[in-house]
Parts: sequence; structure tokens; C-alpha cells
Amino acid sequence: MSSVREVKVATEIPGPKSRAEAEKLGAFFDNRAFYFIADYDKSSGNYIVDVDGNQYLDVYSQIASIPVGYNNPTLIKAAQSPELISALVNRPALGNFPSSQWHDVLKNGLLRVAPKGLDQIFTAQSGSEANELAYKAAMMLYRRKQRGEGVEWTEEEIASCLDNAKPGSPDLAILSFANSFHGRGFGSLSTTRSKAVHKLDIPSFNWPQAPFPALKYPLDEYKAENAAEEKRCLEKVEELIKTWQFPVAGLIVEPIQSEGGDNHASAAFFQGLRDITQKHNVTMIVDEVQTGFGATGKFWGHEHWNLTSPPDIVTFSKKANTAGYFFGNPQLVPDKAYRQFNTWIGDPARVVMAKAVVEEILSKDLCNQTARVGAALYKEMERLAEKYPQLVQNLRGKDRGTYIAFDTKDSAALVKKMKTLGVNIGTCGVRTVRLRPMLVFEEAHIPYLIESLDKALGSA
Amino acid sequence: MSSVREVKVATEIPGPKSRAEAEKLGAFFDNRAFYFIADYDKSSGNYIVDVDGNQYLDVYSQIASIPVGYNNPTLIKAAQSPELISALVNRPALGNFPSSQWHDVLKNGLLRVAPKGLDQIFTAQSGSEANELAYKAAMMLYRRKQRGEGVEWTEEEIASCLDNAKPGSPDLAILSFANSFHGRGFGSLSTTRSKAVHKLDIPSFNWPQAPFPALKYPLDEYKAENAAEEKRCLEKVEELIKTWQFPVAGLIVEPIQSEGGDNHASAAFFQGLRDITQKHNVTMIVDEVQTGFGATGKFWGHEHWNLTSPPDIVTFSKKANTAGYFFGNPQLVPDKAYRQFNTWIGDPARVVMAKAVVEEILSKDLCNQTARVGAALYKEMERLAEKYPQLVQNLRGKDRGTYIAFDTKDSAALVKKMKTLGVNIGTCGVRTVRLRPMLVFEEAHIPYLIESLDKALGSA
Repeated sequence: MSSVREVKVATEIPGPKSRAEAEKLGAFFDNRAFYFIADYDKSSGNYIVDVDGNQYLDVYSQIASIPVGYNNPTLIKAAQSPELISALVNRPALGNFPSSQWHDVLKNGLLRVAPKGLDQIFTAQSGSEANELAYKAAMMLYRRKQRGEGVEWTEEEIASCLDNAKPGSPDLAILSFANSFHGRGFGSLSTTRSKAVHKLDIPSFNWPQAPFPALKYPLDEYKAENAAEEKRCLEKVEELIKTWQFPVAGLIVEPIQSEGGDNHASAAFFQGLRDITQKHNVTMIVDEVQTGFGATGKFWGHEHWNLTSPPDIVTFSKKANTAGYFFGNPQLVPDKAYRQFNTWIGDPARVVMAKAVVEEILSKDLCNQTARVGAALYKEMERLAEKYPQLVQNLRGKDRGTYIAFDTKDSAALVKKMKTLGVNIGTCGVRTVRLRPMLVFEEAHIPYLIESLDKALGSA
Repeated sequence: MSSVREVKVATEIPGPKSRAEAEKLGAFFDNRAFYFIADYDKSSGNYIVDVDGNQYLDVYSQIASIPVGYNNPTLIKAAQSPELISALVNRPALGNFPSSQWHDVLKNGLLRVAPKGLDQIFTAQSGSEANELAYKAAMMLYRRKQRGEGVEWTEEEIASCLDNAKPGSPDLAILSFANSFHGRGFGSLSTTRSKAVHKLDIPSFNWPQAPFPALKYPLDEYKAENAAEEKRCLEKVEELIKTWQFPVAGLIVEPIQSEGGDNHASAAFFQGLRDITQKHNVTMIVDEVQTGFGATGKFWGHEHWNLTSPPDIVTFSKKANTAGYFFGNPQLVPDKAYRQFNTWIGDPARVVMAKAVVEEILSKDLCNQTARVGAALYKEMERLAEKYPQLVQNLRGKDRGTYIAFDTKDSAALVKKMKTLGVNIGTCGVRTVRLRPMLVFEEAHIPYLIESLDKALGSA
């Protein structure tokens, strides 16, 4: 059976049924960000269907979250499995009363894809939570080293932390980059620097932000400029670590800044970050919430860097169908139980689903497929960039699977137009269109996407 | 069929199989807080079974999280439903592409039990996240009122917030109480004041904590003292709101401080908090993460207060099988879309499960059952308190369903002993034993619990 289906656009978008249902929903649930009301029962593979009967080729994938296609049979089978039903019905406090299946669910699922050098896992429920758990691990490690291995907490530390005061509640920072997005909790939001709509009115920690390289495209033409730009940013990172008012315990970075506009940097830049963090004893956290699980053509985005030593922590979510972090340094396990703990410690139902996602990706070799399809898609995008030099600028994502993006004049108008042509596609940053097809996106889906983009750009 | 099963204790606890499996798990997952490895397939109703074949009467319920019994048939049916399978497999970005079922899932589920006066919902994944979303809503409302309705954000606000600086990132506080527990994110942890193990080494916001009434028991004997103590605490709350270095946007309080030691206060105290928060335009957030969903004999713990006007926000999690917050004040909806937003906005699979939990509680009248059974249980506990005046002190939870607790000399030793007698029971605070049976706990389960407590106390 071909995986290609016809797109259908029978109504304006959102259509009358979508609008009516969204209005009903609005009686008790914020509906202001809805695009259309989806009919997931009719959606399949790369295609999403709405309640008006419109069928779209989906290269947005629930904000880069659907890994292996709507109604994927392997995932449906997992959803019907006894272990999953039990995890839903008997939701355990995983730290206190793990199930007899929990070891195998992790071992045969997420652990199979643990990044090289990182063999410990802590399960969570969102990318935001995973990042905050990572920050806390970095901070506890920093203080433990400062205190001295095996040195007990003082009475003063114990008493002062309950009052949110020093020394128990120390000033410790996590460094992040301009235009980064790491979540919306109070800690993760303090490292998010992408848009005011995320941050305005919310108190934040006084943590430093470094500039992220603003590369010029095409990369081949601006080698020297880009190398200088990356050097400048690395120097600023080191300066901030050395001069910030209080210690920097961790640094967090996305392999590709996604929400902030699909900003890339070279492998050398990330190696530079690894060197600086090691030199200054800063925990290096790689936020793979969006880049993880294959879309760059490798399972993890940071595999493209060939680092001399692995990062300390890698966080994941989105396409994993669950969230959490991997870590390798055993010192990142806190010195006492219950320091890194909560009632649920993630959701075993979602971790069972993650196992099925992993199975599907590995057994169908979907990372390599994405690398191959992405290369073909990138070539087509290059053609469009030549044809519309004013409307397709700074094309990026070469050798990064289907993780492709470009800048345009009015990204919101373009993706709106694309919906009327039956392609669900998203934006990021200020004027960027990002492609986030699923890992089951094939060569056969490229023509319709490109023809539609051609049409939309031609009428812009 | 009787809901009473025999407890069996065939091995030491944890037994050899539990220890072996925990050790295996420890290769990649922190196992230091485990009590035993559970066999959820064999667990049923009020009874949990471990891999060594031990069967316990469970009055801890996964840290107060199992609502209606292990392997509850209504929940199993929900777990097998097509809408649940779809929610697992096609995990949507609920803000952008809600499903055609989403309206009905909420309307026929969580909305049926929305606290009086609160008819809006925001779905989340953990109690910690729900509380932080509530804080953010309170803060955005505070700044909106300060800014003036309809007044646009300034360029300075927009630019400064990305730098974590004022005025975009303002100093705004959430007031909480000594000994409270509200979660472990950086914002929620800043309001948690229960134990150093939760907070040490983690930076926190400079937010105020008020004393929570330290009532003397039995309440009847200390009426005057307790009223004076509550008055003192209320005065301190108002003083902190009036004199804190920066504005207090919200106040959060648990109906019964659970993790912090099962600390109660009177309805009059909470009415006092409502009066103070209204007087000073402070958003009142009631954290019902542990008290919600029936265990106090009413659906919501705050229903016991008969407030003159509802709280502004009520958060929930645990027994709901999911998490989120209810709110009534329409101003708590931010002025723009995407301010309160994230990729998933909770988990629809878990919200479908919550619908089944709600159905089960309402159709079986489990709140009233819990009130009735709780009253009988409390009487038996009074008997034990008389028999062991040194070991069962400050008995609390009268007229609060099965939400019963007492102080003892060595709470850890007592619950350990109870496990060897086949009762899974938990502690809180410093020297408190808390009862957290499920809502399916019946009169028939009381004798074994009381006999075991009698035995354990008698041998202490």
C-alpha cells in the first residue's frame, strides 16, 4: 500500500465544523491557539484530517512530536498491550513501588537508544521538567564538590534552605543562549530566551545568556566570518562563566535552536562548549527535546558533533512520547535518596509507548531513511531558494535529515497559504518556516510538499 | 464477592525477589527509595502484591494516588477504549490541534467535578506543574491590573524580560506556609517548605512564608488556644502581604498540609485567608493535589470550609490520574494566546482515565462512603489513642473522611513493622503516620488495619 494519500481541502481553514467545535470548547478551555479540530481516527501516516474532512500532508507533526505517523500499527499494538493497560490503571509511585516490568520496559526501550557514554536515566513528563531535573542535578553536584565529598550538610544549610535563604538556597546559575527555548517552568523559563510572550511578567533567576552564533548562509561562502562569529560566542561563554556574580553550575544548549528560529552552529562550536565546560567544571546539558529521536538523520542531534567526550546530560521529550533525561556521570546521582524524586517520576504508560517508538525507529531504520529523504528534500529546497531568492533565504539543515528551515518575508502568511493547499506546516523564530515531518516521511511525499511551496511562494 | 482479601507475608520485606529486581534496576535507575517491587497484575482493590508473593492491605495507595483500587474494572474499560488508544498513539498538541473528542472528554469528565464557582480548566501533567501554571496566571493577572486593562506591553518590558531583567521580569511573590509542600520545580519548590531534602542546594525565589497554625489536640480541649494561634497566623499573613519587599501576587495553601505532617486548620482560618486575599487583591490558590478527589469525605477538601466566595484557583493531581487547575475568574485567562501554553498541555490519555475515575466516584457515591467509613475508622483510632497515649498522639482527621493521621515516637519503625504485618502504610512530617486508603476502602477493611496497628504499637 502506498503511503501517499491525496490531500483534500474542501472548506476554508479552519472550516465551519472546526470553528463551531472550537467555540464550544472555548466555554471552559482556552481555544485561542487552535488551527483546526483534528479527527485523529481518520488521520494516518503523514496525513492529518480535520473535522471538516480536510486532509493535510503534515510536516509540522504536533510541534515536532509525532514520531512514526498517525495511527502507527506498532504503536496501536503497544497501546493495547496488558503492560500498558496496567500502567494506566495502576499508576505507580515509581520510586517507591516500581512494577516488575519497569526494568525491562526501560532496558528494552529507552535504554536501547541511550546516547553513547550516558547509561543512567531519570524519567519525567515534559521537556520542561526534564530540563529542570537536569539543572537540579547539576546544582547538587556543584555544591557537593564545593562542600567536599562525604561532608554532611550543616544545620545552617538545612535551616536556611527552608527559608529560601543562603547558604541552603545558594546562588547558582544555569547559562543558556540568546534565542534558546528550554521550557516554561520557573527554572526552565529562566533559561528560555526566545520570545517575550513566553516570559513577560514572570519572575526569573538572574542567570546569564550568551550569544548564539548568527551564521551567514550559504555556509560555504562565509566560512571565515562564521568561524569568527563562533569564536566570539565561545569567548563570551567563557567570560560569562568566569565573571558571573555567582557560580555557573550548568550550561544548556540545543543542537539546533528550534523555537528560536532553527539556528545552527558547527560541530567545532559545540566541541568548544564541551572544552569550556570541562575546563570550568560546568555540567553540560544538551536539550534534545526537539532534535532527539531521529529527525536530524541521527538518533540524537549531538551525534553530529563527534565530541571528544560525551555531554554530561541529554534531555528528551516530544517524539519520545514521554520525557526524561539521560546522564552518564555517576556523580550526578544525588548523595541521598529522595533529593531527586517526585510521586510519579514520569509516566510508565508513556514509557511503554516510547519503547514501541524505539522499536519502530530501529527496526525500520528510520534514522537512515530520514537522512536519505532529508538530503533529497534539501536539494529540492535549494532549487526553490534559487527560484525565489527574496522569499527563501538562509536555507539551513543540510546533512541534518529533514530538519530543514528557511527565512521568508511573512512566515505566518506563508504557512496559512500552505494550509489552504493541504499542507500543515509551522513557523519558528521571527520569520522562519520550519519543516518537521515525521520519521516516516518518504521521497514520495516530497513532490507534493515542494509543488505546494512553489505555488504558495509564487503567489506571495 | 467480598472486597476483603487475606494479607500474606511470606518473606522478610523487601523479599529476596524484590531485592534482586531492585538491584537489577539500579544499574540505570535510582532505586534507593524503593520499598518493594510490585506485581500490579496480581494486585486488586485495596490490596497490593509484591514479586515475592506478599499481599498487603494498602492504605498508602502510591503516595495517596490510587483512587478507586488496583485493577478497577471501570478504569480497565477506559484504558481499552478507542479514544484512549488514539490519545496514546496520536499524542496531540492540544492547544493547536485538539481532537474532536476533547470537548466531551473534559465536559463529561473533569468538568463534572469542577469546584463550585470555578468553571475553566487548564490541563497539566503533575501537581508541581499545575501549581506553577497557577502562579504564572496569578502573576500575569497582577501585572495586567497594574498595567491597566488593555494597555499594551512596552518595548522596554519586551526587551528586558528576555534578559531576565526588570521591568519585563518583575519581582513578584507567591506566599506559602511553613511546612507546606507544593512540588519540586523551581517555582513550586520556592513555595515548598517541608523538608531540607527537597530544597537544599537549589536556588529559590525570595518569597515569604507564613506560619501555619500549630493546633493542639484534642481540638475540643484547646479551643481558645487554637483560635488565638490561627489569629496569630492570619495576622502574620496580612503583615507579610503588606510589608514584603515586593508585591505578593498569589497565596497558596493546602486544605490539609500533607507531606509536611498532616497539619489541619479550621474553616474559620481559611475564611480568614479568603478575606485577606480579597482585601489585598492576592490570587488565592488552593493546592488540592493530595486532598482533592474525595479522600476527605467531600470531593474537594476546601468544600469543608463553606467559604463566602470560592477560591480563585484550585489545583489537582494524584488521585485524578492526571493534573491541572480549575479557575473561575475569567481575568486569570492571560490577555494574549500562547502566554499560558506548551506543546502538550497535559496528556489526553490521562484525562480520559480521569473521566473514568470521576464516573466511578460519582456513580458509586464514594465520597459519602469515604465520609462514613472514615468516621468509623476515626472512632477505632480514638480507641487506640486511649490505649497507647504515648504512641498515638495528636490524632487528627475527624470529619475528614479517611484522611486520618497521628504522631508517634518513631514513625519509620512503625510503618516498617506494619509492612511485616501485611499493611502498606506511610509517614509524613517528622513523626507522623498518615492513613491514605483508597476511596474503595470499606468498613470491612477496618478491623485488619486496627488489629495490625494494635499489634505493632503493642510491640513498640
